[in-house]
Amino acid sequence: MKLFANGILPVYNQSKVMKNVVQTREIREAILDATDVFLGRYGYKKMTIDSLASEVGIGKGSIYLHFTSKEEIALSHIDRIIERMCAELKTIARSRETPAERLSKMLLKRVLFRFDSVQHYTQNLNDLLAVLRPKLLARRQVYFEKEANIFASVIEEGQKAEVFDVENSMEIAETFLLATNSLLPFSLMTHELGERKDIEAKTLRLANLLLNGLLQRDR
Amino acid sequence: MKLFANGILPVYNQSKVMKNVVQTREIREAILDATDVFLGRYGYKKMTIDSLASEVGIGKGSIYLHFTSKEEIALSHIDRIIERMCAELKTIARSRETPAERLSKMLLKRVLFRFDSVQHYTQNLNDLLAVLRPKLLARRQVYFEKEANIFASVIEEGQKAEVFDVENSMEIAETFLLATNSLLPFSLMTHELGERKDIEAKTLRLANLLLNGLLQRDR
Repeated sequence: MKLFANGILPVYNQSKVMKNVVQTREIREAILDATDVFLGRYGYKKMTIDSLASEVGIGKGSIYLHFTSKEEIALSHIDRIIERMCAELKTIARSRETPAERLSKMLLKRVLFRFDSVQHYTQNLNDLLAVLRPKLLARRQVYFEKEANIFASVIEEGQKAEVFDVENSMEIAETFLLATNSLLPFSLMTHELGERKDIEAKTLRLANLLLNGLLQRDR
Repeated sequence: MKLFANGILPVYNQSKVMKNVVQTREIREAILDATDVFLGRYGYKKMTIDSLASEVGIGKGSIYLHFTSKEEIALSHIDRIIERMCAELKTIARSRETPAERLSKMLLKRVLFRFDSVQHYTQNLNDLLAVLRPKLLARRQVYFEKEANIFASVIEEGQKAEVFDVENSMEIAETFLLATNSLLPFSLMTHELGERKDIEAKTLRLANLLLNGLLQRDR
């Protein structure tokens, strides 16, 4: 593509392009917001492209400018939950607390953020997960890798500060995720999840034990 | 019930009763053995009471002397896996190694015993778990409690020997189970389980971290 003489778009066109980009992103977000409402209220099977379009106030055809199918909408909705959670994990990872404190808060966040994101689904999460399970499985590995990288960065800090006795920070990060995976709504169905305060207590107990396991010992 | 004069059955009758008890137990075990073969080969949906009866070499009616339904047979089969695993956990728990070594072996056993028990099911475990999931969920809590008690007994030993720094051994036992639950075929479907050697490596890594977390520290 040939660029304009100065390598960027003229000011008028540039702002118009930006406006379109922002609008496109806003509509996409609005569709996913509506998805969240519909999935929680009616479940995956009863959610239709028509109902989403009318909730957002756009035509059905406009939905297809952003997504190819209902399945892609639901998966993008879950992608967004993970992206938002990873953003919060990164904020904690960059904070000024000790590596152990940050890791503990990050473990709690990874469990409770997901819990809170699907809590209003009550019965309907089961049918959502059942229908999307094969596709979600494929994405799951990517999700975990993103999370593991954030955890590994903090573990490395503790390693460099000689607070943690760790050889392979990525392996430890993956072990942390593995240990808390059974508390996520992916393996547990909603009715198996239990009370938020119990999930929180279990996660904290697990985090304490895991972090204690990392600490340097006097030999 | 009125007992015989000496409080026990006469020798002749006693041995006859014992023989019947043994026979009954043998037939029950044979039905469950056949269940294991059929579930692995054909899956839950295609397994019939008729096919089980003919495999064991008894009449269909005889099956109903032991079990009320196909569902009860499948659940009893899973109960038996858990009972056998708990027996092996107890053997390790009573061995002469250090508490940490025993706990590590027990964690490995709880994961790999289940893995090996369902490994020959390949595709069919999914339909088994899907159909029985609600009933299994109810039993799951009982299974975990049995396991937790065995783990807690070893943790207490380490606590008394002042090797472990633990307040509540049962809470720690439950945390150990929770941490390894996502490696069990209950939350993971068979195709998600992965290679045995990878499961083994992950479990060992997790066990090391958890056990390191229990150790007493110089303060």
